[in-house]
Amino acid sequence: MNLNYIIPNEWSIIEEGFDKTQATASESIFSIGNGAMGQRANFEEHYSGKTFQGSYIGGIYYPDKTRVGWWKNGYPEYFAKVLNAPNWIGIDVKINDEQLDLNSCLAQDFYRELNMKDGFLKRSFKTTLKNGNQVAVESVRFLSLDINEIGAIKYSVTPLNFSGEIEFTPYIDAGIKNEDTNYDELFWEVLDIEDRDNDAVILSKTLKTNFYVATGMRFSYELNGQTIKLPHTVIEGEKRIDYTSKKLIAIGETLSLIKFGGYCQSMNHTEDELISCAQNNLSNAATIGFDGLLKKQKEAWAKIWETSDIIIDGDVKAQQAIRFNIFQLNQTYSGEDSRLNIGPKGFTGEKYGGSTYWDTEAYCIPFYMSTKDKEVARNLLLYRYNQLDKAIENAEKLGFNSGAALYPMVTMNGEECHNEWEITFEEIHRNGAMIYAIYNYVNYTGDYNYIPEFGMEVMIAVARFWHQRATYSNAKNQYMILGVTGPNEYENNVNNNFYTNYLAKWCIEYTAENLEKLQNEFKADYDRIIETTKLSDLEIEAWLKVANLMYFPISEKHNIYLQQDGFLDKEIIPVSELSKRDRPINQKWSWDRILRSCYIKQADVLQGMYLFENNFEKETIEKHFDFYEPITVHESSLSPCIHSILAASFDRMPKAYEQYLRTSRLDLDDYNHEVHEGLHITSMAGTWSAIVQGFGGMRNFDGQLSFHPQIPKEWKSYSFKINFRGSTLKVYKNQTECVFTNESEIPVQIIVDGVEKIISKNDLVTI
Amino acid sequence: MNLNYIIPNEWSIIEEGFDKTQATASESIFSIGNGAMGQRANFEEHYSGKTFQGSYIGGIYYPDKTRVGWWKNGYPEYFAKVLNAPNWIGIDVKINDEQLDLNSCLAQDFYRELNMKDGFLKRSFKTTLKNGNQVAVESVRFLSLDINEIGAIKYSVTPLNFSGEIEFTPYIDAGIKNEDTNYDELFWEVLDIEDRDNDAVILSKTLKTNFYVATGMRFSYELNGQTIKLPHTVIEGEKRIDYTSKKLIAIGETLSLIKFGGYCQSMNHTEDELISCAQNNLSNAATIGFDGLLKKQKEAWAKIWETSDIIIDGDVKAQQAIRFNIFQLNQTYSGEDSRLNIGPKGFTGEKYGGSTYWDTEAYCIPFYMSTKDKEVARNLLLYRYNQLDKAIENAEKLGFNSGAALYPMVTMNGEECHNEWEITFEEIHRNGAMIYAIYNYVNYTGDYNYIPEFGMEVMIAVARFWHQRATYSNAKNQYMILGVTGPNEYENNVNNNFYTNYLAKWCIEYTAENLEKLQNEFKADYDRIIETTKLSDLEIEAWLKVANLMYFPISEKHNIYLQQDGFLDKEIIPVSELSKRDRPINQKWSWDRILRSCYIKQADVLQGMYLFENNFEKETIEKHFDFYEPITVHESSLSPCIHSILAASFDRMPKAYEQYLRTSRLDLDDYNHEVHEGLHITSMAGTWSAIVQGFGGMRNFDGQLSFHPQIPKEWKSYSFKINFRGSTLKVYKNQTECVFTNESEIPVQIIVDGVEKIISKNDLVTI
Repeated sequence: MNLNYIIPNEWSIIEEGFDKTQATASESIFSIGNGAMGQRANFEEHYSGKTFQGSYIGGIYYPDKTRVGWWKNGYPEYFAKVLNAPNWIGIDVKINDEQLDLNSCLAQDFYRELNMKDGFLKRSFKTTLKNGNQVAVESVRFLSLDINEIGAIKYSVTPLNFSGEIEFTPYIDAGIKNEDTNYDELFWEVLDIEDRDNDAVILSKTLKTNFYVATGMRFSYELNGQTIKLPHTVIEGEKRIDYTSKKLIAIGETLSLIKFGGYCQSMNHTEDELISCAQNNLSNAATIGFDGLLKKQKEAWAKIWETSDIIIDGDVKAQQAIRFNIFQLNQTYSGEDSRLNIGPKGFTGEKYGGSTYWDTEAYCIPFYMSTKDKEVARNLLLYRYNQLDKAIENAEKLGFNSGAALYPMVTMNGEECHNEWEITFEEIHRNGAMIYAIYNYVNYTGDYNYIPEFGMEVMIAVARFWHQRATYSNAKNQYMILGVTGPNEYENNVNNNFYTNYLAKWCIEYTAENLEKLQNEFKADYDRIIETTKLSDLEIEAWLKVANLMYFPISEKHNIYLQQDGFLDKEIIPVSELSKRDRPINQKWSWDRILRSCYIKQADVLQGMYLFENNFEKETIEKHFDFYEPITVHESSLSPCIHSILAASFDRMPKAYEQYLRTSRLDLDDYNHEVHEGLHITSMAGTWSAIVQGFGGMRNFDGQLSFHPQIPKEWKSYSFKINFRGSTLKVYKNQTECVFTNESEIPVQIIVDGVEKIISKNDLVTI
Repeated sequence: MNLNYIIPNEWSIIEEGFDKTQATASESIFSIGNGAMGQRANFEEHYSGKTFQGSYIGGIYYPDKTRVGWWKNGYPEYFAKVLNAPNWIGIDVKINDEQLDLNSCLAQDFYRELNMKDGFLKRSFKTTLKNGNQVAVESVRFLSLDINEIGAIKYSVTPLNFSGEIEFTPYIDAGIKNEDTNYDELFWEVLDIEDRDNDAVILSKTLKTNFYVATGMRFSYELNGQTIKLPHTVIEGEKRIDYTSKKLIAIGETLSLIKFGGYCQSMNHTEDELISCAQNNLSNAATIGFDGLLKKQKEAWAKIWETSDIIIDGDVKAQQAIRFNIFQLNQTYSGEDSRLNIGPKGFTGEKYGGSTYWDTEAYCIPFYMSTKDKEVARNLLLYRYNQLDKAIENAEKLGFNSGAALYPMVTMNGEECHNEWEITFEEIHRNGAMIYAIYNYVNYTGDYNYIPEFGMEVMIAVARFWHQRATYSNAKNQYMILGVTGPNEYENNVNNNFYTNYLAKWCIEYTAENLEKLQNEFKADYDRIIETTKLSDLEIEAWLKVANLMYFPISEKHNIYLQQDGFLDKEIIPVSELSKRDRPINQKWSWDRILRSCYIKQADVLQGMYLFENNFEKETIEKHFDFYEPITVHESSLSPCIHSILAASFDRMPKAYEQYLRTSRLDLDDYNHEVHEGLHITSMAGTWSAIVQGFGGMRNFDGQLSFHPQIPKEWKSYSFKINFRGSTLKVYKNQTECVFTNESEIPVQIIVDGVEKIISKNDLVTI
């Protein structure tokens, strides 16, 4: 996809003209979702060209057999894989008996729009078939936020140069397979097909995991906007059911098919009520009607935007990009269900097994915390709490004991889904992110009760892991963490990664500190936890010894922390001196060459200083930024946002803006030539942070909200809102001033550029 | 397989009684081969129990698609895999219409013998079928050393309690598949089946690699030792051909089937002559006859034993074991064909892709050099010379240039077959073994011409690799080799592995030194090489700078070289303190735990000191032995032999003997519970070295042959012979004296325990 393929627009993603080579990329970009399900922007009608068909249901996975070169002890046997679900959007269309297929006839005036304001996907085009018939086609599709088991399509055909027969065949098809499978196994079994007069439901279940899913559709017709009845014939296949209707219409008339569809699944209903549940949903949707549902959709999105919109004035592409990021995050996770999480590709592709990475804790929590009610972030924390047993099992597999937990690198149900030893077994810093997210949540929301209720058990299990994972070095009389991969995955099996060691030390100290607080202030919870975890003072002492004697690699010459032991033995050549031929190095270089180079994939030492900014002098962080940023290649989508935030904190706005640009339009401009595989959902939260924490300078250490607002010179103004402990604070910044408005009842005490302010209800404070 | 399953015998491997649970293990142990082909000891008659059918042809492979978890640049697309070949040994047997199958009737007096003296496999048993018929069965089988495309079987049945019909169906079957495939692909295509009166040939070819193979058989019958003619019916299937004959015989009579079979293949013949070549071989074999061929077989093996036998008096199991090792090495590689090499499983299994590891250069060369004519070792060197272009290509894939070569870790045709980055890309020390083998060969044989003719081009390409692979550390003002895996594969991606750095430095120096010699003494070759390789003095200077400034990790405290940077930060706990539950760690521990432990899989620093023993004080080596041996788990079959040799050099015979025992009966006693997968062929050369270099103390630095003979107190005496520059020296050692005999015309000057001796023809020098 090229840089200017998407038409700039403040509220919509727009494609004009149909380019077959972009088809799979557009399918990703125009994806829709409602937190419970989602789908790529596949055409409803048949398309014989290159396409990547994808519909996904939150939480539904399949344990694909792990594929490795050489098996190693501790690898997961199975790999929970995001599963392509039955297709309910399909509509075959014939015009005077000729199949409509944009791969075999030329599309004119092709227009596709992802309307982010109202939450629907629209497509229209004209085309002339081989038989000479010219038609205009329009489809509007959305997945309801209101009834999250339902989606709706209105598909209209208008003959432009003839009167003739239009045939529609709406269908549902459970005979789907994954793009991405290890052994080409079948994932679904069809159990039942129920067809009634104008609805049909296919009941199928996933093999091995036994998720039951009822996929349904219901349809009706309109001629020129008036409901009409059409007879139909039904063809029931083994895994598919088709309802064909045809009608002779005159030139200029419009025949529309209204199709409702969606899924009821066994995570939310008992198996035996799934079919009737699907039928009820469909009849309910039909009663509300397409327009009624769409109206509710607009209202629901208006409510989301009310709290989460960021307005940028003076840069349409930046405006479009930030809204795209916020829109996709909201499409992926709505926050009501603590069994779901934020997949790296959301509902837009199936690359990577599992739905949950440390991205959630390290990058996504701030977005959901600030733009939603605190329950949403709390549900994300509970997801990990509910998987604690599996994390303990996972640690046991690797030889740890006594209740130590290692959270998986990638997971769906708590089990590890990754199978490279250097990641699965070594990228253990993720364990620290679990605790940081608890700290972040409690700090931001003030909901301390989460720790005695749930958090402390996770904290203890993780502290136990760090204690056992550290090695006492006789040579240095300090504790070391050997054989790890840090956030910078361009290093494997290194010793004493600064980020990992720092996080380990902090986790232990934070846990010990809060244990003390619990003992004093939450005695009943404390006693329960001590009893459950069999924790002794002696054990805590042993943890603290590790924390107190933790080793950190430093360079005396440069007066910096080293990313890991021996880092300075590498040849340090700035990225700017690399030939263009060599970039991106992950596509151009062999793995060993990457490993022994100095190049950093994503913030590592800097990631640690970003998370614990309050523990370092600004000059110290800046010194590290100046050392590490020039050798960082940002080949992870999670890298530029952190650098943008830090650069802004040093008042280096040009650098901050440069890094912001890299993150904000990553998918829209397809920087990495991989958008056809799906969107980079989790890094979108980083883009949000780059504005709010970067340009806005929002921080919240020790429960104190503070700002240091700046603005790129390229923009006229921007504004965002945050939800903070029940109040809604709006921040507006232009080139000359900054305005804080409190849209709630509760006054907020903030610090702006070092000066304390109290913003009360409807106050408008200009700085 | 348990410790005492194999019956001790000086010249034979013997199994008494049939144990189905040992069936696949025995199939490995009783394997036969003749350097050009080989096969597991599968029964000729049908066996419905657990079996692993395997026939292999030297040099025939298939490029199986590489299977990895996550693809990395530089991985080989394809994986040359040892290929299971068509079966020619099969004989279905029916007794009065009931199929003979040892899985469904009880074997009595079951006896299997691998006769190593004469080179054949014999099996006999009695059994009573369900129909009550009792028969005695005997089969004798061998693969001819004399005509290496031919094998022979004599299969005899004697009714013991009945007169009745015996039916034989000799067949050939090309419908075979590999035990070990990545994607269950078909590897062979059958092109033609030619059947004649008493022979048949199937022509098939391997997919993708297009090796053509004619698999043939020819048969005849004997009644009580007299040739008889029997009519037969032919059944020709798609991939198989059967010839069925039956005969009514009386109680006590013996009906024998004589079956010749084997392969003609397109590495040795043109495609269109393969069938007639196979037919000619078969008729040739029939003319010589089974007994005639067997006589030649005995003569050929007598000749092999004449130069390679090791005689141990006073320990039958040790005698059996060393002969088993020598026998299998000779079955695997006969030395005439420089396109073949010594597969880690020889012709006894198909685990691991490819046939060639650094084992050949580091472990096998001394055995073949000492027990065979120098041409054999020369052919092994030429194998690598002929693959130099592929090694240069391989280095290019990893980003090296200007003619630098990286030999593959595992290969069949010169292409890399391994696909774990930590091995494929990082275990680069193998490149040094290529040059060490040249040094070793020239040093031992005195055939210096090999270097100007062939060796130097390989040496230059490898020196170039080391030069490019080294990194200049500004911090230390020295050259480092970052991101490697040493011989100890329980460490990955370490910096400055002592062994690797030492070998790199030595390779450069040895190359530069010999370039100078060539310039002075082999000017024409020198000019040709300089022209071909475009080598400049400047480039050599740059190499030497790397060699001169090579960094080595040391511990001042322990006064030793460290295996790698940071080794002492590990927790050092001797293996003796590990719980039995934890052993072997490669089966009990996760990979990350192994990596961060101090445990050493096989000699690493000590491997280097073994290869370059002349460059270190004995006390220095001993100090390193005392540091590293206690933390070595010897979980590589290549580890104990080196430790045994070194221990003997320090006159620590109990330790040397302990380590010798671990290596010598590794397969016969199935220490690692994996013999069913095939034998550990290359480590067998290490066992030979443990006696000759270990107990015998043979060394050959700077062309000077020396000995330091000792004997384990458990033995009465042992003796071995070596071929040294045309002379045959016999060394005999008992508990009181050592006798050297020169069985050739050429006198040999040796040093024994530091004293110079000249041993002339038929001299018998007692020390």
